[in-house]
Amino acid sequence: LAIDAGSSSVRSYANYTVFKGKAALSMTPVLPTIRKVDISKVYKNGCVMVTFWPAIGQRKYDWQKKQAFALSPTEVGSLIALGPAESCEFFHDPSMKSSLEGQVKKTLSVSPLGNDNGYFLNLSVVNHVQKTNERFSVPVTKAEFTVIRTVLSYVLPHIMGWPQALRSEVPSKATNLQKHQ
Amino acid sequence: LAIDAGSSSVRSYANYTVFKGKAALSMTPVLPTIRKVDISKVYKNGCVMVTFWPAIGQRKYDWQKKQAFALSPTEVGSLIALGPAESCEFFHDPSMKSSLEGQVKKTLSVSPLGNDNGYFLNLSVVNHVQKTNERFSVPVTKAEFTVIRTVLSYVLPHIMGWPQALRSEVPSKATNLQKHQ
Amino acid sequence: LAIDAGSSSVRSYANYTVFKGKAALSMTPVLPTIRKVDISKVYKNGCVMVTFWPAIGQRKYDWQKKQAFALSPTEVGSLIALGPAESCEFFHDPSMKSSLEGQVKKTLSVSPLGNDNGYFLNLSVVNHVQKTNERFSVPVTKAEFTVIRTVLSYVLPHIMGWPQALRSEVPSKATNLQKHQ
Amino acid sequence: LAIDAGSSSVRSYANYTVFKGKAALSMTPVLPTIRKVDISKVYKNGCVMVTFWPAIGQRKYDWQKKQAFALSPTEVGSLIALGPAESCEFFHDPSMKSSLEGQVKKTLSVSPLGNDNGYFLNLSVVNHVQKTNERFSVPVTKAEFTVIRTVLSYVLPHIMGWPQALRSEVPSKATNLQKHQ
Repeated sequence: LAIDAGSSSVRSYANYTVFKGKAALSMTPVLPTIRKVDISKVYKNGCVMVTFWPAIGQRKYDWQKKQAFALSPTEVGSLIALGPAESCEFFHDPSMKSSLEGQVKKTLSVSPLGNDNGYFLNLSVVNHVQKTNERFSVPVTKAEFTVIRTVLSYVLPHIMGWPQALRSEVPSKATNLQKHQ
Repeated sequence: LAIDAGSSSVRSYANYTVFKGKAALSMTPVLPTIRKVDISKVYKNGCVMVTFWPAIGQRKYDWQKKQAFALSPTEVGSLIALGPAESCEFFHDPSMKSSLEGQVKKTLSVSPLGNDNGYFLNLSVVNHVQKTNERFSVPVTKAEFTVIRTVLSYVLPHIMGWPQALRSEVPSKATNLQKHQ
Repeated sequence: LAIDAGSSSVRSYANYTVFKGKAALSMTPVLPTIRKVDISKVYKNGCVMVTFWPAIGQRKYDWQKKQAFALSPTEVGSLIALGPAESCEFFHDPSMKSSLEGQVKKTLSVSPLGNDNGYFLNLSVVNHVQKTNERFSVPVTKAEFTVIRTVLSYVLPHIMGWPQALRSEVPSKATNLQKHQ
Repeated sequence: LAIDAGSSSVRSYANYTVFKGKAALSMTPVLPTIRKVDISKVYKNGCVMVTFWPAIGQRKYDWQKKQAFALSPTEVGSLIALGPAESCEFFHDPSMKSSLEGQVKKTLSVSPLGNDNGYFLNLSVVNHVQKTNERFSVPVTKAEFTVIRTVLSYVLPHIMGWPQALRSEVPSKATNLQKHQ
């Protein structure tokens, strides 16, 4: 199934967006990529990108002020397993292993709204270079979190590259069967 | 796998239908669509269409008198998450943002049959223009609701366009890898 | 992915088989089919075929004496939803709506082994014409039933024709967009 | 979706790896294969290969000293069904039905870390010929085990050959429709 032409434009359709009073939140999958560096290949795991952007009026949101957080497969597993009264928190440093390490700190926290009613998703971005501290908070209902959990469960094998590898694998015709054991 | 030719005729096979004493109920997925308007594209989310039509005799049902209700992704999430003793209710106005806004009110409610035995699915359509008030009620067993929950979980990423986007996405060959973070 | 040539031979590989002391049990999916009758088409729902065949010695089983039971989508839903201490029972008449109606009665029953340890799957086939009464009983562990539940959840949309219809559906290019509501 | 060329290199990307203090652990699916032996075909079920290899320093691991354990579909079912406080244990003899039977004994055990916090995955390989006894132990968090459970549920039908058979199956055009029952 090809939805028209440009994959780049189509790509942006695979998301789930929730608009609330103070901010909007969007989740979109990012597939793993393979990059050729000279003669070797560099494999990069996929992720689920969570983007927050603030409300600037009645049903108006400013996409320019967005902040993103890339969930790793294990962080996706953490969200899928989250019980009704449980919380979780992830810390990312986008400049890790560079000279700016420790200058920007991103924190995504998920905490229950109470009474099995969904969760608050909060993103905080502290930037010591620019001396900024941005905070986003989006309440997500139980039904919305069920959508998130269902699509995260669906997409988890994809961001880990499993379906792609299973599809490209051609069954060996006769010869090299290893003994499974 | 191509089941014969005409996609339009095949499309109607992807449903789940339950025939009960007073009415029948059918669920069918509707994929998202992209429409070209001049030079831009208008993306329209998919849905799961729930159709009710009344019994008019022993095992006879009148399709002409059908009424439909389009479940959004979040409403689908609500049904998937529904606990054994829980209820939910959705309100739609098919004429929203038109001059007829408020003239027709559709309500889909789901309430437990009791003793973990399934649910009543009720649709009410109140039409102030035609002065009609139609009501449908279909009891759905636990096994039937498990089929509904299973196919809704399966189809939810599809009506949101995720598999289509994941399939059309070609891994970038070398260049523009953004830093995930 | 094409596993060699003949679909008929490959088809038989998609099963899950459990060999126990008195009998063996196998589950295999059957996709829906479309048959042309003159100018119209007859659609036939898929099923999951459960086949039992008896042991006739140490690790020897007689496939000639097999008996099969075709699970409908709703019966598959019933197995998926089965709680640890719950039972279920299905009755089929393979000659329904023929002159032999009522002559053969097939009963598949599933009852817990106790202590959350799996289930007994029992098939009884009473044939009033041949005056035979065959019984098969296969104990299935919790791990084996989890395999059954997982593949039944996977295959349920397929035997209902949903993936096939979703794949053959081409998004409408511009024109006939109905208002979802 | 074709991730570049060589399926063998791509294949190795479909895994989930956990690096911990004393050892690393990796899971990767192996599809079923068909081998031609003279005029007949030998079908071999797939598995999920679990590989352990030891740490030999700070964040350094020795792949040469790896040991692998091939999970059968039913063992995969056992892991998927594992409750928060439950344990399971599998025994394999890689030389079964050969002259070396009983000389090597592999044991994979999974036991809870306590307080719903994940599991210990332990592999022991006792080799009576080489008089060696290797042990690996990897603690897996709840989030990591949720990733494992999610991809095992996804991949289980694949290692059993179900999607491949469903895809290669062409609906019969008119003729041989058996009566499902």
